[in-house]
Amino acid sequence: MTDTSENNRTGKPLTEAGRSRRDILKFGSIVTLGAVLGGGALLGHTAPALAQAASKGELAPNDPLDILIVNYDGGTLLDFAGPSEIFHRLPNTNVRYASLNGGNVTLEFGVVYGKTERLADIERTDLILVPGGSDLTAPMRPEYQAQIRRLAQSAKHVTSVCNGSLVLAATGILNGKRSACHWAFVNKLSEYGAIPVPDRFVEDDNGRFMSGGGVTAGIDFALRVAAKLRGQQAAEFTQLVIEYDPAPPFHSGHPRDARQEVIAMVDKELPGASKGLARIPGVR
Amino acid sequence: MTDTSENNRTGKPLTEAGRSRRDILKFGSIVTLGAVLGGGALLGHTAPALAQAASKGELAPNDPLDILIVNYDGGTLLDFAGPSEIFHRLPNTNVRYASLNGGNVTLEFGVVYGKTERLADIERTDLILVPGGSDLTAPMRPEYQAQIRRLAQSAKHVTSVCNGSLVLAATGILNGKRSACHWAFVNKLSEYGAIPVPDRFVEDDNGRFMSGGGVTAGIDFALRVAAKLRGQQAAEFTQLVIEYDPAPPFHSGHPRDARQEVIAMVDKELPGASKGLARIPGVR
Repeated sequence: MTDTSENNRTGKPLTEAGRSRRDILKFGSIVTLGAVLGGGALLGHTAPALAQAASKGELAPNDPLDILIVNYDGGTLLDFAGPSEIFHRLPNTNVRYASLNGGNVTLEFGVVYGKTERLADIERTDLILVPGGSDLTAPMRPEYQAQIRRLAQSAKHVTSVCNGSLVLAATGILNGKRSACHWAFVNKLSEYGAIPVPDRFVEDDNGRFMSGGGVTAGIDFALRVAAKLRGQQAAEFTQLVIEYDPAPPFHSGHPRDARQEVIAMVDKELPGASKGLARIPGVR
Repeated sequence: MTDTSENNRTGKPLTEAGRSRRDILKFGSIVTLGAVLGGGALLGHTAPALAQAASKGELAPNDPLDILIVNYDGGTLLDFAGPSEIFHRLPNTNVRYASLNGGNVTLEFGVVYGKTERLADIERTDLILVPGGSDLTAPMRPEYQAQIRRLAQSAKHVTSVCNGSLVLAATGILNGKRSACHWAFVNKLSEYGAIPVPDRFVEDDNGRFMSGGGVTAGIDFALRVAAKLRGQQAAEFTQLVIEYDPAPPFHSGHPRDARQEVIAMVDKELPGASKGLARIPGVR
């Protein structure tokens, strides 16, 4: 995990090209035109770096980016609501939502989310994101796994938030790959051949695999993905628009900080959590 | 705004009463029984404090809590997805969603959220939350305003996230009250008789009015609301479950930190933003 927070604080201003879509808070095509006007020297990318990215089949910040968020019954809204809010605001980025049968899905707590496309109707995507949930029974089923495996194999970037990494790992695509996961489940990754890393953001194979920790880690994850694929300035713009200037009132966001009795409460609800081995429906 | 992060670090462990609902990561009735067993001395509340709260018509952590999230076309998903994720996990707390006509609403970026109840079918609620959006045309209409005003007047707690405070203020209920808002819109509050406060969390009338700043501020807002209404231990439990241990990769979450050229980008998309006076459909 690279801390890039102090990088590129002197980036040059970009020239605006006008708005590309209906979305009022959308970045529009600013970066695209900026990259063209600046010969690729903006956003921390030098021209040789862009050429190198192209030669490796990677996306440059001005290539169209197609993102697919996989939805399923039992999923957790905030796992993908953070990334979704960020991805929708990036330039030249199209965000789609799909589930096995399409239509509405019923998330954790009975929250209804729709209208999703059918996974089988999606030919391919540049980036697949599998969010986590409190019940992974649905996405662990063979039909779901087959669709996720197919789309992940052809995607440039295979990503997850929270215990969505268990769903990805179960397809086999994370074999030998380093991955993040919600702290309560992270060590289950090794049962599916992946390498558990207890960080908030984890990258492997030079960004082919990117993953976030539990639930709210999806916001930090998505900002890093945004910077990597659309340039740092686009990520900073989005962070400012969503006022992501966090100020948690308590020190309780991770077992390393939380009070012992609070950790014990989670362990009672989710036996094995403090060992990273909590049980969850759908996971062996 | 009170920083309570160092308070009650010596709270006693609670006794678990088992799970109250189907939700795997839900706190259940732990606090309820804990409060009963401990005679109200847990969670930082002394017995006299609880008695005082009761005499003022306030909620004690073991009273049932009814929360209503107001939805509308053009709303922003993450404004309420953060609070929703937290509120659903609190003990003795029921979270409902309602819109003017009920059924599905179409949020910003075409995201569909459902199934909401009809506002007119809700007799009253303990806490009303109005999230923000990129288009406030719908909730600024007289029929929406009448329902929101009616429910806010009888609610114990009147709350908002992001520019949802403009919607609340337009009903007149925030006359002379201090309120937060997304940084780009905060000074518009005074046009509706409220007092703009450029903080991430703002409280007035001893918690009758509570509001969060822009989009992601909803998470910090909800943890503070959780601590106030359900006790600090319940808030800490929830923070740990949603792994809220933020690590933004850039210093760009607020105009005070963001680079000038990034602020200028937002000002181009939303003229007046850096003065807190950005225009938005539906707002005069």
